[in-house]
Amino acid sequence: MAKAPVLTPRADDFPRWYQELITKAELADNGPVRGTMVIRPYGYGLWERMQQEMDARIKAAGASNAYFPLFIPQSYLTREAEHVEGFAPELAVVTHGGGRELEEPVVVRPTSETIVNEYFSKWVQSYRDLPLLINQWANVVRWELRPRVFLRTTEFLWQEGHTAHATREEARDYAAYIHQEVYADFMENVLAMDVVPGRKTARERFAGAINTLTLEGMMGDGKALQLGTSHELGQNFARAFDTRYLSRDGRQEHVWQTSWGSTTRMVGALVMMHGDDRGLRVPPRLAAVQAVVVAVTGDEAVLARAGEIGDRLRTAGVRVRVDDRTDVPFGRRAVDWELKGVPVRIDVGPRDLDSGTAVLVRRIAGTREPVAVEALAALVPEALEDDHGLLLAQSRRLRESRTVDVTTVEEAAEAAGTGWARIPWAALGPEGEARLAERGVSVRCLVAADGSVPERDDQRGNVAVVARAY
Amino acid sequence: MAKAPVLTPRADDFPRWYQELITKAELADNGPVRGTMVIRPYGYGLWERMQQEMDARIKAAGASNAYFPLFIPQSYLTREAEHVEGFAPELAVVTHGGGRELEEPVVVRPTSETIVNEYFSKWVQSYRDLPLLINQWANVVRWELRPRVFLRTTEFLWQEGHTAHATREEARDYAAYIHQEVYADFMENVLAMDVVPGRKTARERFAGAINTLTLEGMMGDGKALQLGTSHELGQNFARAFDTRYLSRDGRQEHVWQTSWGSTTRMVGALVMMHGDDRGLRVPPRLAAVQAVVVAVTGDEAVLARAGEIGDRLRTAGVRVRVDDRTDVPFGRRAVDWELKGVPVRIDVGPRDLDSGTAVLVRRIAGTREPVAVEALAALVPEALEDDHGLLLAQSRRLRESRTVDVTTVEEAAEAAGTGWARIPWAALGPEGEARLAERGVSVRCLVAADGSVPERDDQRGNVAVVARAY
Repeated sequence: MAKAPVLTPRADDFPRWYQELITKAELADNGPVRGTMVIRPYGYGLWERMQQEMDARIKAAGASNAYFPLFIPQSYLTREAEHVEGFAPELAVVTHGGGRELEEPVVVRPTSETIVNEYFSKWVQSYRDLPLLINQWANVVRWELRPRVFLRTTEFLWQEGHTAHATREEARDYAAYIHQEVYADFMENVLAMDVVPGRKTARERFAGAINTLTLEGMMGDGKALQLGTSHELGQNFARAFDTRYLSRDGRQEHVWQTSWGSTTRMVGALVMMHGDDRGLRVPPRLAAVQAVVVAVTGDEAVLARAGEIGDRLRTAGVRVRVDDRTDVPFGRRAVDWELKGVPVRIDVGPRDLDSGTAVLVRRIAGTREPVAVEALAALVPEALEDDHGLLLAQSRRLRESRTVDVTTVEEAAEAAGTGWARIPWAALGPEGEARLAERGVSVRCLVAADGSVPERDDQRGNVAVVARAY
Repeated sequence: MAKAPVLTPRADDFPRWYQELITKAELADNGPVRGTMVIRPYGYGLWERMQQEMDARIKAAGASNAYFPLFIPQSYLTREAEHVEGFAPELAVVTHGGGRELEEPVVVRPTSETIVNEYFSKWVQSYRDLPLLINQWANVVRWELRPRVFLRTTEFLWQEGHTAHATREEARDYAAYIHQEVYADFMENVLAMDVVPGRKTARERFAGAINTLTLEGMMGDGKALQLGTSHELGQNFARAFDTRYLSRDGRQEHVWQTSWGSTTRMVGALVMMHGDDRGLRVPPRLAAVQAVVVAVTGDEAVLARAGEIGDRLRTAGVRVRVDDRTDVPFGRRAVDWELKGVPVRIDVGPRDLDSGTAVLVRRIAGTREPVAVEALAALVPEALEDDHGLLLAQSRRLRESRTVDVTTVEEAAEAAGTGWARIPWAALGPEGEARLAERGVSVRCLVAADGSVPERDDQRGNVAVVARAY
């Protein structure tokens, strides 16, 4: 009798595979309030590493971290017309505090543009105060009717950047810089994710923005997931909150702004892009544990050898963990490390002692071979570097193989059943976009003919990338 | 005419001095919803450094970070009787979500023992799963009627640790370990704060705990501030949430638990303990900027020299910033750095160039002297190390000079007008404690005769430390 697979195969039922992986790899549980989640230590460890890498990039972009309140007066939300229209249906409202009904209900922040602008108005006086570059790491709440852990949750964790600039050009350039040098760079060079940078259509823009830049990734089932967005807000919030500065030539001007965010959804993306039928595969530059040295048995000599290999790898700069939990059967631990997706496993058993070898098991390359213990300090870092490239190439190949060029709405809708379609925006337009929307298909982004990010929706040669999305 | 002081002197009006310092040093602003706060970049930078130092210690104590939901079903809170009694008056309640009234209102977490236990009950099966050591960095909400920025705010940021153990002794030892090796160590060795470790009386214990360990600090006005608490929860929450494990000998047992927290209140404590009439004084091991090199004028040679000094110090391991904002008058920048409390300032002006000197201004030692540029790389690290000791000694001296030993309730109440009193617990007791409470004075903690933390309230020789508190 063949052993039952640990997970439902992806090809059989992708959503079920996803949920099983999240649970069995101990990434997260559903919370008691519908749509909330408990992020378990292994899942949170992924997020912590994402935070570190992102935070360093955000600081390198000149922004400083700050913290704005969770509670926003309901009246703030209504000041920017499109913004309130976009967020009103998703708000959680606090009506009672300290045992009494509140005079004005407060909303739990769904995003912080309004409250940030209230304070920018106080802090910004003159052109000398600009640019003002702020980021915050926080939780936000958007009531979800069809929640799915990490992807769409009522509460999620994120960073949200908010900046104010003297000119439209500066704001535009800064939004583009974050899009490219923070988000795209992080996703490709740390998460090993293939992402398509592009521009949202008017229909898909952030509520209150004049332009939204996005990064879209293809998940293992061919659907799309939006992975980080950077918005030009123009002067919309500046006008609503009267955020002005005294210019060099002595005039009062409204500031030009950006906002940009990325969320715990990236953990879900990691699973759906890099996961396989045996579990997660963690990109090595992200992994808190890049290599696990598994003592197959509890013999003292085996434990000593495992410890010694751990030390060698640590010295070689590898983030390593020694698994000496030999009261748990080896097979169960091996399956668990596969599920959790640690890139490199090194098994050390009694028979390896005399030969001076260990078994190097590479989760991403899918190889398994005995190697000399002496060679590990050189081999493992190479393997990790190689694995990064493999994951990135695999995700790129998946997207390329499941993307087709089409010319009609009908073809686009059909292609979106199994992957992505590329269609000239001139052939689709807002009307075609609306027809696709009726069938659950959306324009993920517009890309220019040369693959760059277009500056206008109607730029000649723009191609719409069309897909079903999470 | 004498120049007006930047801040109201502490001796004139301590609360006003505090509020002015918070505002002028750009640490925080009051939020729009009563009792909330906006933590500005300079204030948040202090919190970020606190997080880094604390997080490393928490991880060294074996705990892993995780994240539990902000929203807790109201029914959870009621399961542990003392807990709900303690927190009910402070709850913020969400009654509407996604445009509809909720079937069961949810509370915004005031602390997470209840929701954590709900999940510990699922995760813990056998003794092999213990100890379970979890920490989370999060925001919490407790409705405040008399808010004061950083000290008592409706929303604050904190870490909360939650652990489950097989035996009472293990839980007790872990709570004590966190109290001493995480909290006390951090406060003394990073914040340079004199703190008194002790045990809370039954009256002052955390709602639901069987024992609360605390660290109390004396603020500049002689009042006390509780700076971090570590609780033994016994089996109270385990029984309420049926958190059990299968013991080695095959029996179902309730786990023994701890919880422990420290908050953004520590930023307020930093101000009130180390601040003086010219502003904040940041302890050097905490400071994100330990030394600022100020170009007095915008001459190219001055800017070059300032940059060169910055490089030297950076190479010497100092966290340094070069202030080249020479469009702002030097005097204003000097006052601002004093307000912000950067430990070391190095002024470089045109006259310093030929002599190869710069002026070394030490915020904490209060000295100011020309020194050879060559000597800075050695002098500044020494000064910073010295400053840490100075701050710690000053705060200890303040406490010692304003603490008196007394024997009656009357004397204790009077001493609490200007500082702390120490009174034998045998002479005070719960009755005396209640009489003090009527006069706004509380027992901050009990300490044993030898200065250690007592294991019981009624341990022979216990001394009560009595004060007015923030």
